[in-house]
Amino acid sequence: MIGPRTADPGLYRLAYQVGAELAGRQAVLLCGGLTGVMEAAARGAREASPPGRTIGLLPGTDRGDGNAFLDYVLPTGLGEARDGALITSADAVVAVGGNPGTLIEIGYALQRQRPLAVLGGWSVLDESGRPVPGVLVARTPAEAVTLVLGSAG
Amino acid sequence: MIGPRTADPGLYRLAYQVGAELAGRQAVLLCGGLTGVMEAAARGAREASPPGRTIGLLPGTDRGDGNAFLDYVLPTGLGEARDGALITSADAVVAVGGNPGTLIEIGYALQRQRPLAVLGGWSVLDESGRPVPGVLVARTPAEAVTLVLGSAG
Amino acid sequence: MIGPRTADPGLYRLAYQVGAELAGRQAVLLCGGLTGVMEAAARGAREASPPGRTIGLLPGTDRGDGNAFLDYVLPTGLGEARDGALITSADAVVAVGGNPGTLIEIGYALQRQRPLAVLGGWSVLDESGRPVPGVLVARTPAEAVTLVLGSAG
Amino acid sequence: MIGPRTADPGLYRLAYQVGAELAGRQAVLLCGGLTGVMEAAARGAREASPPGRTIGLLPGTDRGDGNAFLDYVLPTGLGEARDGALITSADAVVAVGGNPGTLIEIGYALQRQRPLAVLGGWSVLDESGRPVPGVLVARTPAEAVTLVLGSAG
Repeated sequence: MIGPRTADPGLYRLAYQVGAELAGRQAVLLCGGLTGVMEAAARGAREASPPGRTIGLLPGTDRGDGNAFLDYVLPTGLGEARDGALITSADAVVAVGGNPGTLIEIGYALQRQRPLAVLGGWSVLDESGRPVPGVLVARTPAEAVTLVLGSAG
Repeated sequence: MIGPRTADPGLYRLAYQVGAELAGRQAVLLCGGLTGVMEAAARGAREASPPGRTIGLLPGTDRGDGNAFLDYVLPTGLGEARDGALITSADAVVAVGGNPGTLIEIGYALQRQRPLAVLGGWSVLDESGRPVPGVLVARTPAEAVTLVLGSAG
Repeated sequence: MIGPRTADPGLYRLAYQVGAELAGRQAVLLCGGLTGVMEAAARGAREASPPGRTIGLLPGTDRGDGNAFLDYVLPTGLGEARDGALITSADAVVAVGGNPGTLIEIGYALQRQRPLAVLGGWSVLDESGRPVPGVLVARTPAEAVTLVLGSAG
Repeated sequence: MIGPRTADPGLYRLAYQVGAELAGRQAVLLCGGLTGVMEAAARGAREASPPGRTIGLLPGTDRGDGNAFLDYVLPTGLGEARDGALITSADAVVAVGGNPGTLIEIGYALQRQRPLAVLGGWSVLDESGRPVPGVLVARTPAEAVTLVLGSAG
């Protein structure tokens, strides 16, 4: 689960629902651990019943920067280089909202060939103006999770 | 100067010309140090007269992986986390061609607010389908270099 | 918990006991996730009753490199730069055995001012030949854990 | 060339002389780019005649943090994870003075099997209390440089 550290109410709700969907699939939520989309997703996972597990990989060195909805807080001290570690550590990636950090993480997800769905974010077109293969566009949180994890059925 | 490690002849020529333009401006060429676009740009800089200076930041630990056109070869051992270090270390960024690594580097350039021009690569659209601000699209190597460094005059 | 990826039976037993002690304190075991001391400590934590939780931060990109005793496997793709992230993420550090990687991690523990105990490993002397402050030398696994976490009371 | 970012006059002079010796061998000085020992060494290299070349790999994101004696300033944004990149990028390592950062870099030098000399710093002993192989102890700047680069002939 990746996304900006600021989120308007609509984006916050989307991210919250993605977290809840992931918890419903018994998936562990791995995120950047800060505010905005990262907090919303962790909160959605933790407030699901039964609650899902959440891990935050922080860019800084201070555990206290982690949001309040993380089971495990790992302050890496790597700065934005933690983005690559975050994506490499994930089995599948859902990007909510668009910003430079999310773009970096989309790039890493493509590079590591992780299943990737984008929800309400930026899009990436190739030289011919076609969507880049491997970036799945989702319209709802449930669809995003199904796209990357397969249907629960 | 960023771009894929494989390059067809057209892309190789574009990157070569970007390197030559940068050398003509007395700019130091900083690149990923491997093959493809990275090699072409370094070669263009080194074969200019007077030759430009070139530095390669490699992902691996082996100096021998650097291409033959680098004044300074720095094998960082960071894997793809060297992408962030590369962009953060640059005053301005020209992206030639499109691939996941280039997308990562576009993201870092936006995040670090480095002047950024894209030549023959992927494009990034925001939620409204408009080009993301800060990603300048160039049609020629000279235009790309002028967009990020200002006109030489 | 840090240490080499190879371990003779004596070192393996020490690390196993450190893992067990940590589990007994309800501490989460964070380690490098590979073989040797890292595996022994994770195994000691997981085979305690009740079992402790274990997280492995791998240097590579392949989840399959993690040992069999990890609750959470995070392949960071950072190479040895994951050492700094590992220590920064820890509340306290126990080093078992000596090798270059352990030395790196002792340095990061001192830099981040994490409580640090060394068990059966290398020692570091300052310019005057005295042990460097902050590197606590333990003789037993229980003592190592008590030194860094305080007595259990 | 590695060492603390603070240096008393004696340490500053040692590091300055190491920089001068390296310049005399036409070696490129690669350092952490900040103050103290890093500045002294870069200054020694640049004030030699003919001047040596100097490169600084900074932990932060701001080029302005580099000292005044660097030909190339690379702000990596990696935090202390730049230590590993610095050592991996070096052909040989001279450590002046002792502190946690220097210890990290000694560890990386051993791990990467780079020739390593220590001057006026901490020492590392193995389990038997003997100096760890691969850490050469030098008494003078000239000796340190000769130990890692070989005699000039």
